[in-house]
Amino acid sequence: MSNEQEHPRKAFGWAARDSSGVLSPFSFSRRESGEKDVTFKVLYCGICHSDLHMVKNEWGFSTYPLVPGHEIVGEVTEVGSNVQKFKVGDKVGVGCIVGACRSCDSCTDHLENYCPKQILTYSAKYYDGTTTYGGYSDIMVADEHFVLRIPDNLPLDCAAPLLCAGITTYSPLRYFGLDKPGMHVGVVGLGGLGHVAVKFAKAMGVKVTVISTSPNKKEEAVKHLGADSFWLVAAIGTMDGIIDTVSAQHPLLPLIGLLKSHGKLVMVGAPEKPLELPVFPLLMGRKMVAGSGIGGMKETQEMINFAAKHNITADIEVIPIDYLNTAMERLAKADVRYRFVIDIGNTLKARS
Amino acid sequence: MSNEQEHPRKAFGWAARDSSGVLSPFSFSRRESGEKDVTFKVLYCGICHSDLHMVKNEWGFSTYPLVPGHEIVGEVTEVGSNVQKFKVGDKVGVGCIVGACRSCDSCTDHLENYCPKQILTYSAKYYDGTTTYGGYSDIMVADEHFVLRIPDNLPLDCAAPLLCAGITTYSPLRYFGLDKPGMHVGVVGLGGLGHVAVKFAKAMGVKVTVISTSPNKKEEAVKHLGADSFWLVAAIGTMDGIIDTVSAQHPLLPLIGLLKSHGKLVMVGAPEKPLELPVFPLLMGRKMVAGSGIGGMKETQEMINFAAKHNITADIEVIPIDYLNTAMERLAKADVRYRFVIDIGNTLKARS
Repeated sequence: MSNEQEHPRKAFGWAARDSSGVLSPFSFSRRESGEKDVTFKVLYCGICHSDLHMVKNEWGFSTYPLVPGHEIVGEVTEVGSNVQKFKVGDKVGVGCIVGACRSCDSCTDHLENYCPKQILTYSAKYYDGTTTYGGYSDIMVADEHFVLRIPDNLPLDCAAPLLCAGITTYSPLRYFGLDKPGMHVGVVGLGGLGHVAVKFAKAMGVKVTVISTSPNKKEEAVKHLGADSFWLVAAIGTMDGIIDTVSAQHPLLPLIGLLKSHGKLVMVGAPEKPLELPVFPLLMGRKMVAGSGIGGMKETQEMINFAAKHNITADIEVIPIDYLNTAMERLAKADVRYRFVIDIGNTLKARS
Repeated sequence: MSNEQEHPRKAFGWAARDSSGVLSPFSFSRRESGEKDVTFKVLYCGICHSDLHMVKNEWGFSTYPLVPGHEIVGEVTEVGSNVQKFKVGDKVGVGCIVGACRSCDSCTDHLENYCPKQILTYSAKYYDGTTTYGGYSDIMVADEHFVLRIPDNLPLDCAAPLLCAGITTYSPLRYFGLDKPGMHVGVVGLGGLGHVAVKFAKAMGVKVTVISTSPNKKEEAVKHLGADSFWLVAAIGTMDGIIDTVSAQHPLLPLIGLLKSHGKLVMVGAPEKPLELPVFPLLMGRKMVAGSGIGGMKETQEMINFAAKHNITADIEVIPIDYLNTAMERLAKADVRYRFVIDIGNTLKARS
């Protein structure tokens, strides 16, 4: 069955057809709203670096045609008969996952993001066996459990990146206890994730130091984002924790050295190849290197509410859908401050 | 000034004179008991694998002549005028450290083992600028703060390895919360550290699985040490934590795979070269790789008391001092179950 006939509802977006990195217009279909489903008109969708990895099949599990996008916001147009939390007209969002088993230990603990049966927002199989498609498209249908409410005071375009970049950095700050006023936290990499990490950590009352190898990022980090300091060279043993957003190969030894005893280096970027882990420096200070991936639905809503309260949004460059392939090329060169967001509502027009 | 004249009190032991790996009889001296010092006749001293590393200068900071030994037990012969906790005749021990600044955050938190100014029991500089010498010797002098009490029901020879191997495995089980009844903890490597880790974890009510590449260790692990199971091949996603005692190069990926989400892989061995750290599997389950090194004095005493209460001691092979070089060769081949302990009291005789 073709992508257009799989479901009754016509949908239109942009898809990658192969690993070349190029996306193009794509007609497909989405299911009717089930009793727990929320259907919404997509207004904006952020471009996450993982979209680029997936488009090029760099993680090896992409399926084509692939409609990327997991920083999706819009306005509810229809709700299923049994939907409790949303009504038509609500501002909502969908992040990286649209399903989970709802019964395992992780799900019971509101950590659907660690459910072994989690269903990714795109390039995955939904419960009904059909392929999931992301937010580079005109409409979205999702179970309300995986739909987030966007408070009125958050501009939708700047809020979109919170759904991945936001929760990816907020969650480890909370879980690893790096959210205590007076603490000192480092942020490695000043990109889509890093710049939001700085804002969240500052709002939590933490002293923030941006660690970067790009001296030209100093002014942005300190003056614009509110970081307390900026280091090109390590100041040993001063940090309670570090959020490392870099997905390129990089040495961990200098970062471990920045930590105080019992400090925590949390990786939220995903380098393709293993990194070198020096063990002796971990032993000498009971330090740890951990990983963290997005967050559960409950915490994601909590993060959005925290962002709304503290006026935290992403710094973005809004683009029309026709600019998508150029944006992808620029993203590959890290030429964006700090997130591309596609203006789906105004620029994506279905072919007649 | 010669090693014999540095201090007023004559001492005798065995020392390495260079990195050849060979030890030989050595006359030196120790200080008189200061007002906070405890002097004791050494009766037994365990041979830790790190003694071998230090003898051969494999970590690069050995100073010669080097008298190893940091699993030292004996009987008090003299106490300084201001000693509060010990009296002549007490059974005592000294572990890996004999000094620390006593004022930094780590020291204030009873974590002298993470004090940047900690003084190692041998091959280090003491406060007075003299070299520290370890327990392969007839007498020991140490500040009472770094002296442990050995309860009467612990045989001194089997208790000696608790002072390093014991605390090294006990501390991370506690700190990383791997001590809850019903939890499942893996122990990698069944040597001096690993076999004590199994005993402590079992006494804490934890289900223990020994992970080893040596099938011939299965019977020991399960029948003799009380491990619940023994695996050569990974059973994915079942463990709350793993204590990894292996100091040889080894892959972390299969160990990370054994962990449940939020599980903790704690390294207590110190491989010389960095290990390969795959980051994606950490992210997928919010897992961590941490290090832990010995423990503070308060916790070390707590560990000894816990061992006494639960009748936990090391399984040892007692050797005369003349066997030392042969023991070192066997240790290098891991040919010992599970710890050599030198019978200092009965076999080390000072030259007349």
